[in-house]
Amino acid sequence: MFGQIMNTKLPPRTVERLSKYRRLLDKYKGLDEAHIYSHKLAGLLNLTPEQVRRDLMLIGLTGNHRKGYNIKALIGIIGNTIDRQEGQQVALVGIGNLGKAVLGFIRKAETRMNIVAAFDIDRNKINTHIAHVPCFDIQEAKQVIREKNIRIAILTVPPEVAVSTTTLLLQSGIRGILNFTSVHLDVSPDIYLKDYDIITSLEEIGFFIK
Amino acid sequence: MFGQIMNTKLPPRTVERLSKYRRLLDKYKGLDEAHIYSHKLAGLLNLTPEQVRRDLMLIGLTGNHRKGYNIKALIGIIGNTIDRQEGQQVALVGIGNLGKAVLGFIRKAETRMNIVAAFDIDRNKINTHIAHVPCFDIQEAKQVIREKNIRIAILTVPPEVAVSTTTLLLQSGIRGILNFTSVHLDVSPDIYLKDYDIITSLEEIGFFIK
Repeated sequence: MFGQIMNTKLPPRTVERLSKYRRLLDKYKGLDEAHIYSHKLAGLLNLTPEQVRRDLMLIGLTGNHRKGYNIKALIGIIGNTIDRQEGQQVALVGIGNLGKAVLGFIRKAETRMNIVAAFDIDRNKINTHIAHVPCFDIQEAKQVIREKNIRIAILTVPPEVAVSTTTLLLQSGIRGILNFTSVHLDVSPDIYLKDYDIITSLEEIGFFIK
Repeated sequence: MFGQIMNTKLPPRTVERLSKYRRLLDKYKGLDEAHIYSHKLAGLLNLTPEQVRRDLMLIGLTGNHRKGYNIKALIGIIGNTIDRQEGQQVALVGIGNLGKAVLGFIRKAETRMNIVAAFDIDRNKINTHIAHVPCFDIQEAKQVIREKNIRIAILTVPPEVAVSTTTLLLQSGIRGILNFTSVHLDVSPDIYLKDYDIITSLEEIGFFIK
């Protein structure tokens, strides 16, 4: 509960790392060990132990010097902090190769982010299910997004329609966008936009490899 | 040239932002304006003007108070700093939906990162070209990676083979990995690993939308 008091003050990078800690710990909870040290968690994610301890302190957790952090408690408190109890509805817009890959990927992941609708203009996809997600005509976006209470969209459309599609999504009530199109989207500050930029990641790797 | 003196000291986040500045400025260079202000660049990327000025100061650039930064000079100096003159060879490993999407995407982007080989186990893909990239049997990886002088791999294989494929790639001389598999890869510190985590991005958006 106390996580919810603090959570609007957490910086985006902390939320990102908390999500990563949980995903890693989810794989550990089946194992024998009940505890994990900050330096172990840090090492697995290429972070410093100080960074891990600072993040966990922000959500009210301090580790035991001898045993480290209790894994189940850690997963629970991270969940109380970053999840909404009821889960969240997500739409995927643009069912090409990338869209299909994302649908398949998220379906297999353990998360409270539920993709409940996909949109496209292709008649062959509309009114079918892909990776168990129902596909709708993009022209129905406004209605479907409202009916299903969707607030987040994953944008996997071709670049030439990225801006017009975004306008439609925002008019339909979308408040957060994960943008895969590489097109710069000029949205108002109350919309949470996250760009997923493959080229930038590759250039960063190219710079740092020896 | 002076960029190359400093560049090993730049932090990863700065390199990431420099790459983003360039990608955005590339779209501006055809327009009439020759200069751009730090607050304009910052606004387009949801950063603070101070952050932009600090990054550019790190590569030896200060803006003109009245006109801002010269766009062409900015693009040139960022390139001198973060690119290798000869470009870099990249392999894509795993030609499913996601792999195909990445191949198509990078082909259209302006970058010196060249995908020169793709690998899979599927006989129907081996010895064909996908998005103009030649596809090889993963069993040939060692030979092809050495012959083509590839140092970077994009990992888009199914999760169950992520670890074994990584071992093979590192044995073949790969030094940097862009990991799309959501599997945690335990690599030595001299390998530059970057994870592309869709779930973490979605959870971050879910946390911050109002």
